[in-house]
Amino acid sequence: MSAAGERQLTALSELAGLVAGGATRRSQLVTATGLSRAAVAQRVDLLITKGLLVETGTVATERGRPPLALQLASDASVVCAVDLGATHSTVAVAGLGGTVLAEATEEIDIDDGPEAVLSRLHEQLGRLLAEAGHPASHVRAIGIGVPGPVEASTGTVIRPPIMRGWDGYRVPAFFEGRYDAPVLVDNDVNMMALGEYAHRPATAHLLYVKVGTGIGCGIVSGGSVHRGATGAAGDIGHIRVPGHDDVLCHCGNTGCVEAVASGAAVTATLREAGLPVEHVADVVRLVQAGDPTARRQVRLAAQRIGDVLASLVSFWNPDAIVLGGSIASLHDDLLADIRAAVYRRALPLATRTVAIEATILGRRAGIEGARRRAVQHLLSPEGIARILAAR
Amino acid sequence: MSAAGERQLTALSELAGLVAGGATRRSQLVTATGLSRAAVAQRVDLLITKGLLVETGTVATERGRPPLALQLASDASVVCAVDLGATHSTVAVAGLGGTVLAEATEEIDIDDGPEAVLSRLHEQLGRLLAEAGHPASHVRAIGIGVPGPVEASTGTVIRPPIMRGWDGYRVPAFFEGRYDAPVLVDNDVNMMALGEYAHRPATAHLLYVKVGTGIGCGIVSGGSVHRGATGAAGDIGHIRVPGHDDVLCHCGNTGCVEAVASGAAVTATLREAGLPVEHVADVVRLVQAGDPTARRQVRLAAQRIGDVLASLVSFWNPDAIVLGGSIASLHDDLLADIRAAVYRRALPLATRTVAIEATILGRRAGIEGARRRAVQHLLSPEGIARILAAR
Repeated sequence: MSAAGERQLTALSELAGLVAGGATRRSQLVTATGLSRAAVAQRVDLLITKGLLVETGTVATERGRPPLALQLASDASVVCAVDLGATHSTVAVAGLGGTVLAEATEEIDIDDGPEAVLSRLHEQLGRLLAEAGHPASHVRAIGIGVPGPVEASTGTVIRPPIMRGWDGYRVPAFFEGRYDAPVLVDNDVNMMALGEYAHRPATAHLLYVKVGTGIGCGIVSGGSVHRGATGAAGDIGHIRVPGHDDVLCHCGNTGCVEAVASGAAVTATLREAGLPVEHVADVVRLVQAGDPTARRQVRLAAQRIGDVLASLVSFWNPDAIVLGGSIASLHDDLLADIRAAVYRRALPLATRTVAIEATILGRRAGIEGARRRAVQHLLSPEGIARILAAR
Repeated sequence: MSAAGERQLTALSELAGLVAGGATRRSQLVTATGLSRAAVAQRVDLLITKGLLVETGTVATERGRPPLALQLASDASVVCAVDLGATHSTVAVAGLGGTVLAEATEEIDIDDGPEAVLSRLHEQLGRLLAEAGHPASHVRAIGIGVPGPVEASTGTVIRPPIMRGWDGYRVPAFFEGRYDAPVLVDNDVNMMALGEYAHRPATAHLLYVKVGTGIGCGIVSGGSVHRGATGAAGDIGHIRVPGHDDVLCHCGNTGCVEAVASGAAVTATLREAGLPVEHVADVVRLVQAGDPTARRQVRLAAQRIGDVLASLVSFWNPDAIVLGGSIASLHDDLLADIRAAVYRRALPLATRTVAIEATILGRRAGIEGARRRAVQHLLSPEGIARILAAR
């Protein structure tokens, strides 16, 4: 593409972003961009023609013709958001402005492999689109979080520790021919981090730490997910914690924080102690019922997790650490020990402003991040280019 | 400033950056930016008038008027780069294109405080400018690395562990009235990281780890230093390493990697073992002479540092880790153990592409980073705005 073409896309993307952010009048776009009225008009008209924006009249007043109000198109444009877990898939259909039109969660088994799981997902999506009253042709972008490492640029699953049969599978390929829309795939924890970030406008550097069966984190800085050189960033489950070199981890190393302090590890410890626990949910129930042994083990786990986070605070100096995952409902028991460990070990300058908090989106963090990712892409220069080319 | 003004600055910054990157003809700028010939001409002429660019003729040929060649101005424009350590100050005067015109290192004592140290620095700078044949009015930007935490936006030293008397001192204030130039101050390790990054074009996410008397690191991602919420990012010296809870660190905690594996720690251990060492330089000499006890202690230190870096590789997934600092001359002894520890502990996906290497700039990393920072700022929209306003 020519540089002039790129400039045009950047300008269109900026205008669409301003409308998404609440600018409703052409005059506001002129002020915000420094473009001439004519240049704004030409570009806004193009975005309206292409179906991304609409301009609606308000009721006429005695003072003359009322100004028209711009907004993201909602009649014929939706995004789909998918949060794929090991045992569930949550799918949402949402307007470009954020309104969720339909949403549902179904049980799946991720180990059934990509074709089986994505076929069911496709059916689920079809039902929700019908419920929301939109045909497949209205879908403008699809965001999908999956429970494993992803090469985000291609949407390919890479060497997932769970997800049997998915290694090397390029998820967007499944949707080609089914939807005329870009498919944005990322690790589920990255999606959750993005969702939490979007709901914390004062935060610049956020860590989202998911403690469930395993332990992982998502890193967002300045609005973008930090994925690192090979998309492996945030994979903190196998960081070593002191004093546990006798504990074998499924990765083959010993003393990994996931082997010592994950939901699975606490469950195993309590089971060995004779308590009736099978899953992380049982641990949560026991703690909520006030069982002292269960509370003790959760607090010990929190201290280990806090030790790891102290190192990351020293290194990365975030302003927010958000705790999520199936164990996050125990945040009263977890946060105190995590905070104590971070404040004890990290340097005062690094802990001066860090907020260590429970998730505010809870189970919806992943779906919210996937929705954000879809809209973010749709309004990006790349997304705009696709819209201009397609219709 | 109006949005139109900001756009103009962005366009001017882009043009100056293209010339800095090697574009010498107006036609190349037209192609690269998508701007019209007239728009490029108007902006290039402005940058020439303001003294940032020059356009020089080449020898005429029989085929007619030769094309003029654009480049960054060198007659009346230089930047100054300063690397301030605990016991030395290195100062360089350089052309905007990178040529070092004069450079010298002097001994100082950082604990003499800001006024005394900066006064000596100012004299040193004056001598070097005279040597290079430039008056103070030619200085367009000054980059300074200092051995402590800095609030980079204001250039204020914050709670430095060394640097007695500097806490809360705003370094650029000293230079006001002395030079009509922006002063960019940052932690010395951040400057070193930036210098190494600039010399590794294939690298996107770089960690520069400095092992000298202490241990610290600089983080560069996509060309920018990651400073974190309070400018404390990279302060890895107080991350805990397993198995050393009996070792007291000067920070008041125990088991910090700096207390166990820094040059100062190895020096202390060897002295206790009866070896004749006073400073890190003595350790380096002993190892180079093949002393087995000294080599053993350096290798043990490398393993501890490698354990910490393994955690950071899992978390941040860099594509390069560069080892520098006074102990880096021992890289043959250090790198093998650091690499072994990283490969043993971090996950395969994260270590697949990471290069763990010795510094290529050595002692010049800091001064090179400070020079880059000065030029980077000068060509930024903010730097261009200052030039337009001032002259």
